Amino acid sequence: MKAEIITIGDEILIGQIIDTNSAWIAEQFNLSGIEIYQITSVHDDKEHILEALKKAEEKVDLVILTGGLGPTKDDITKNVLCVYFDTKLVFHEPTFEHIKQRFKNRNIDLNKLNRDQALVPESCKVLSNKTGTAPGMWFEKNDTIFVSVPGVPFEMKYLVENEILPLLQNNGKTKAIFHKTVQTQGLPESMLAERIENWETSLPKNLKLAYLPNPMSVRLRLSAIGNDLNELKEQVQDEIERLKQLIPDHIFGFDNETLADVIGRMLVEKGQSLAVAESCTGGYISHLITSVPGSSGWYKGGITAYSNEIKQNLLSVSAESLKKYGAVSEHVVREMAAGAREKLNTDFAVATSGIAGPTGGTEVKPVGTVWIAVSSPDKTISEKFVFGDNRERNIIRSSQTALQLLRRKIINWDSNYFHKFV
Amino acid sequence: MKAEIITIGDEILIGQIIDTNSAWIAEQFNLSGIEIYQITSVHDDKEHILEALKKAEEKVDLVILTGGLGPTKDDITKNVLCVYFDTKLVFHEPTFEHIKQRFKNRNIDLNKLNRDQALVPESCKVLSNKTGTAPGMWFEKNDTIFVSVPGVPFEMKYLVENEILPLLQNNGKTKAIFHKTVQTQGLPESMLAERIENWETSLPKNLKLAYLPNPMSVRLRLSAIGNDLNELKEQVQDEIERLKQLIPDHIFGFDNETLADVIGRMLVEKGQSLAVAESCTGGYISHLITSVPGSSGWYKGGITAYSNEIKQNLLSVSAESLKKYGAVSEHVVREMAAGAREKLNTDFAVATSGIAGPTGGTEVKPVGTVWIAVSSPDKTISEKFVFGDNRERNIIRSSQTALQLLRRKIINWDSNYFHKFV
Repeated sequence: MKAEIITIGDEILIGQIIDTNSAWIAEQFNLSGIEIYQITSVHDDKEHILEALKKAEEKVDLVILTGGLGPTKDDITKNVLCVYFDTKLVFHEPTFEHIKQRFKNRNIDLNKLNRDQALVPESCKVLSNKTGTAPGMWFEKNDTIFVSVPGVPFEMKYLVENEILPLLQNNGKTKAIFHKTVQTQGLPESMLAERIENWETSLPKNLKLAYLPNPMSVRLRLSAIGNDLNELKEQVQDEIERLKQLIPDHIFGFDNETLADVIGRMLVEKGQSLAVAESCTGGYISHLITSVPGSSGWYKGGITAYSNEIKQNLLSVSAESLKKYGAVSEHVVREMAAGAREKLNTDFAVATSGIAGPTGGTEVKPVGTVWIAVSSPDKTISEKFVFGDNRERNIIRSSQTALQLLRRKIINWDSNYFHKFV
Repeated sequence: MKAEIITIGDEILIGQIIDTNSAWIAEQFNLSGIEIYQITSVHDDKEHILEALKKAEEKVDLVILTGGLGPTKDDITKNVLCVYFDTKLVFHEPTFEHIKQRFKNRNIDLNKLNRDQALVPESCKVLSNKTGTAPGMWFEKNDTIFVSVPGVPFEMKYLVENEILPLLQNNGKTKAIFHKTVQTQGLPESMLAERIENWETSLPKNLKLAYLPNPMSVRLRLSAIGNDLNELKEQVQDEIERLKQLIPDHIFGFDNETLADVIGRMLVEKGQSLAVAESCTGGYISHLITSVPGSSGWYKGGITAYSNEIKQNLLSVSAESLKKYGAVSEHVVREMAAGAREKLNTDFAVATSGIAGPTGGTEVKPVGTVWIAVSSPDKTISEKFVFGDNRERNIIRSSQTALQLLRRKIINWDSNYFHKFV
């Protein structure tokens, strides 16, 4: 089944609000096997809405309209729908009873605008809205279904979940769709594409791959379309197993998991703890970690050592290393990691020292140069990276890379442990 | 001038990402006097994109396409544009040089996909993208302008602000417009509106006021439209002077200034330094501070004391206070602030301790309860706040409020200082 979302309202077209409704509807519909063909945002304008309805009817089996059903004067959706379906507004007694009840519960008097909300196009099926005063509406014309819901997010969600999806499922024409997102880190999009090219080319026809890059990671989304949801899940899982063989070091999680989520899960399993020592990342690693609910169970805390004085006094970095190699150096970042692990009394510690920019770079150490170290019970590892020239992105990428190194160290340390003792 | 925004990409149509680009473009275009007729989101599909282009050309003077310009295979925008404008891809030497330079700076080898990003449709004007590898493109057909930009938000924003809007202004397509944003903190939107109601009502007709609330602050944007830019600037400045009289304590900066920017400027002037001690904010205050270029000149560092052990060992919070009052208490947060100021040897220190959620709340201290303290050379102040039940928002609001308290303390301390000695 193919659908189009039409959002009505000037507030979207002047950029006053972000259209989060469409993303939510798109996700719910996709999960129910309804493919979204197009999302269209139009003005509160009769001719424009009529035109959008006509174009949508030519292409899709289902049109969902949001917005333009509230009690104020500028809402014209119902009148336009009467024109489009060649019908007229009639008074709908059950809706009026519902509105009266809501106002009575809140001790507010009804006015004419409220009463007018009980007027609905004669040819529609009324969808009862328990969360507000404006009802949803369901029309059928030729082979296309049209549904109209208010733009208030929680009212829209209520009607989609409790009225529209159940009604659509009863007609049994929808296809099954399954998505899974693979989170990768450490390979830029172009290199990742090269590494997995043969795998991508050999994917079955009913599977689609999408690259979703952001400054934190590159996500790979696999979408399978077919008749049987369980078969699709198996098919996607099989392909992911093949993908794991190709980039085992770069996959860190699935769907909405973050690196901090994954690290937290591993540390909880092992009963181990973490500290951080940040220079160029300035607290951002600590923020990513403490964004995970329950992180206080495995994260003790961190030191942002922005000045050399703090590196010496709180992390016991030696004055000699600072003088001889500079703050952005392998020696210093290793001392920072080891110092944090000792001072905060944890199993693991991760440290960063670099030049975030825009100033402070030299020929030998340009802006974007970052040293990262991870200290663990057996040893300290360190690595140098050169990112770009944008301060904000350097902070994000350094932090994400530090967490990725930490994750690898936790896994390595574990395998050494088992190798030695099991 | 009328425009349509066309976003290309399956990720919007399956609801995996929210289309924030369109809202941003719509706002910028509206502020420049360009009306958005429609926003259309379509699949990564040749026929669908061609159809959307054709329909848009019939209705508007300007079409902006976002998405589908990255280095990977699923990007088809450039090929579709070649079909639509009856042209072919040619190799663009300056773009290739720019790509090579970016990779060289990061010590990464180019592959074929990267090289292909230098292919552009022959008939377009290339818009140089300093923030990424995919250039923007500008086409003209009959009376309609078409521009194509990458979907990565900061690259899209760069091209709109630095290439597209200036080109439109040079072509005489837009009027003179001047915007200035006033940053306020500490008054909710509704109270702010009440305080400045008379001022707002008396604004000249060519000035528009917009309230832009976010979890960090409420911004007031004044937009003046006319013929002479200098006149508009003066007009806006006059109104801002009137506004300053009404809410002197709540305006902390202008345009894109953050509280951390303003605090940094004050501390640099005084030659003073800052440290932080964070519990519930988990490093986010430190991140806001170190996002300011040059903050190493006045920010020495901070301690994220997530566990009580760290509060005791690194900040000298007393075991007795922790036991008697709990970690989320006035006693503990004051000891944290004083401890940070002493241990990091700074003039000022700010500290937070609270319950970010979603768990950990009690009847007496519900989720969202946060204590904040500021320690300065003369004394330590502290205040309790109760925010909401959303972890992410609690972290942001606690951090912003802490910086606001710090800013007021720096100003107060200063006025006492002058009162005493000048």
